[in-house]
Amino acid sequence: MWKKKILFSIILLVIKLLYPNGNKKEYKKNIINYKNRGMELESLINEANEYYLEKDTALIYKKPTPIGLIDVDYKEGIIKKAYFKEKSTLDYNGIYKGKYIDFDAKESHIRTSFPLSYIHTHQINHIKKVIDHGGISFLIIYINDMYYILKGEDLISFIETNTRKSIPYDYIKEKGYKIDLTLRPTLNYLKVLDDIYFKGESL
Amino acid sequence: MWKKKILFSIILLVIKLLYPNGNKKEYKKNIINYKNRGMELESLINEANEYYLEKDTALIYKKPTPIGLIDVDYKEGIIKKAYFKEKSTLDYNGIYKGKYIDFDAKESHIRTSFPLSYIHTHQINHIKKVIDHGGISFLIIYINDMYYILKGEDLISFIETNTRKSIPYDYIKEKGYKIDLTLRPTLNYLKVLDDIYFKGESL
Repeated sequence: MWKKKILFSIILLVIKLLYPNGNKKEYKKNIINYKNRGMELESLINEANEYYLEKDTALIYKKPTPIGLIDVDYKEGIIKKAYFKEKSTLDYNGIYKGKYIDFDAKESHIRTSFPLSYIHTHQINHIKKVIDHGGISFLIIYINDMYYILKGEDLISFIETNTRKSIPYDYIKEKGYKIDLTLRPTLNYLKVLDDIYFKGESL
Repeated sequence: MWKKKILFSIILLVIKLLYPNGNKKEYKKNIINYKNRGMELESLINEANEYYLEKDTALIYKKPTPIGLIDVDYKEGIIKKAYFKEKSTLDYNGIYKGKYIDFDAKESHIRTSFPLSYIHTHQINHIKKVIDHGGISFLIIYINDMYYILKGEDLISFIETNTRKSIPYDYIKEKGYKIDLTLRPTLNYLKVLDDIYFKGESL
């Protein structure tokens, strides 16, 4: 125990001597850049999901990003070193009107097309499987300052009949369903799902 | 940059002087203890889910544990400090025979009863909601060297009609459905779900 105390005292002293004003600037810059990237669409969907939960319309949650643990202090409950892992499924899933719902949200920064590199092959396979098992799977795509729902069926049919590496905006406009922004929730995507999958049923 | 190099050299030197044989023992001990706790049931369920995925019987995944990030080096993709957050939902969800499935796995270390403190209030509310929305929700309970499925309905009915802080083993034996171990997958819980929820349909 005394060894630990001596070690930490020396380290703190050395840090203070070398960095009297701290050295956190660089980290902060990186975190801000990351947070802005694609955060807006995610927060719109989270807002909608919270609204649906509150009104008991649906139960839809974002899956946490899987983490690979390298060094953990389980006594203190603190992760000391870890890395982000890749998801083999999509970001959101849950239940709506008795149906299994499974989808992802993607922003295209190109106005004329949606790059297929944004979706991994195992995610496309997952969409196929969800549909085969009787679930509802789709993408919410932000492109050209607009939000669209593209059914998993239309995504897969495009991929299977095309060799192109991106979906042209025209295809999304033609096959996709536009989500008009409303007051609350801002991105009421379940209203659009009603038109696509639950015709005749009331919300 | 030179400041960093000096800092690290001094720290390394001090560590080497104080701990010539390393000091990783304590961490390792903690990690092993944690891993054994409840790991067996989890790995049996993971094995079953992988089997179902391979045979295209069902799509059921374990939700990653949510993490609260404190310090991240996004450039390197390394988490430098984080903590475990509590789940407000259950550990596993997915789709089976067109139905939304949502459940948790719990081990009771008491032979005569299952402590209700193992399930959080928000998890019980989640189970209620899943059932209300037309999904299937249950617990897989390991108790007395046996595995049982306890339907969400029976769990909630016990809680609502009892003031006890634990479910007696007799209640689990009476209301629950025993999962007999098989060769592959070892814990074929979907077979038991068939008897409970899909009577008349074939696997």
